[in-house]
Amino acid sequence: MTSHLISLIENRGETIKQSRPSDPTCPFCGIINDGDPAHIAFENEDVIAILDILPISRGHTLVIPKAHHEKVSDLPDAIGASIGRVLPRIARAVCRAIKTLEGGSEEAMLAEDHSFNVVSNSGHLQVVPHVHFHIVVAPAYGKTSRKWKKPADFVMGGRAELNEQDGTLVARTIREAIAAEESKL
Amino acid sequence: MTSHLISLIENRGETIKQSRPSDPTCPFCGIINDGDPAHIAFENEDVIAILDILPISRGHTLVIPKAHHEKVSDLPDAIGASIGRVLPRIARAVCRAIKTLEGGSEEAMLAEDHSFNVVSNSGHLQVVPHVHFHIVVAPAYGKTSRKWKKPADFVMGGRAELNEQDGTLVARTIREAIAAEESKL
Repeated sequence: MTSHLISLIENRGETIKQSRPSDPTCPFCGIINDGDPAHIAFENEDVIAILDILPISRGHTLVIPKAHHEKVSDLPDAIGASIGRVLPRIARAVCRAIKTLEGGSEEAMLAEDHSFNVVSNSGHLQVVPHVHFHIVVAPAYGKTSRKWKKPADFVMGGRAELNEQDGTLVARTIREAIAAEESKL
Repeated sequence: MTSHLISLIENRGETIKQSRPSDPTCPFCGIINDGDPAHIAFENEDVIAILDILPISRGHTLVIPKAHHEKVSDLPDAIGASIGRVLPRIARAVCRAIKTLEGGSEEAMLAEDHSFNVVSNSGHLQVVPHVHFHIVVAPAYGKTSRKWKKPADFVMGGRAELNEQDGTLVARTIREAIAAEESKL
């Protein structure tokens, strides 16, 4: 019994981690718990941010609680707070990354102006049943491929898959933007 | 000098409150600081929730930090956390209120299923330059007046003004739903 207790204490970090709700059929839980591939833009104890694999615009990022909860209304207060706490810095970093990568373009100007949208669909228009907040830099007006027409754009149709090489570059640039901000604090 | 210090200490709460950033031209700051009329669904130290005056669907609620910050990217971590902490409970209460008020209808079923969307526009599609998160119960499919077609629905056109009497009823029902949940904790 004593050794069991010692083992529990020694593995406390792991035990707490394992007590986080997860769903073996959930693709986000696969990324969070099983190391399934994703372009990770940010990570802390409670939250991970990854690039959307069907970006509405370059830098399209999903901010996701590590605990599996289906809808915003299912979130415990503390997890909601953890997401809200990091949303601003991730949004800033996404904008800064797009400005860096697309310097001088209309997209870069929109990003510099911090023109973006945050959307979280619960049930209605939700594809993956694990809470996620989209951060989408405003599409440049008149660019058909980027024009944001409908919330249904969050769900389907006409969105090209994320290019793996570009995803690696974009995620790294976002991570660097967060690190640069943290180093100034 | 001493009496000035005593006065500062005595009015500490007020002093802190006054140090909150605000903008005299902002309609939300008018509601928060000057008591301009609004249908208040929730309020705590950092956050207020009011009904949208041009609801996309019944119960359309705006969750707003009391401090004036224009965009999500401008929010200090702690204010972001305060919003994230209350978003789930407000979303639950909005859904419960619509279920209560529209019992048996398609809207009530969508609300019962917690089918809703959270949207915060920064710059792009943002009308009031003070951070706000929309909570919108999913529109019943096929109802033209409620069909959610475009993010532009958040901005303009075709949305009827909130009926004052119904606003009073809806806001009260949301407040009661929050109180009922709190009394169970």
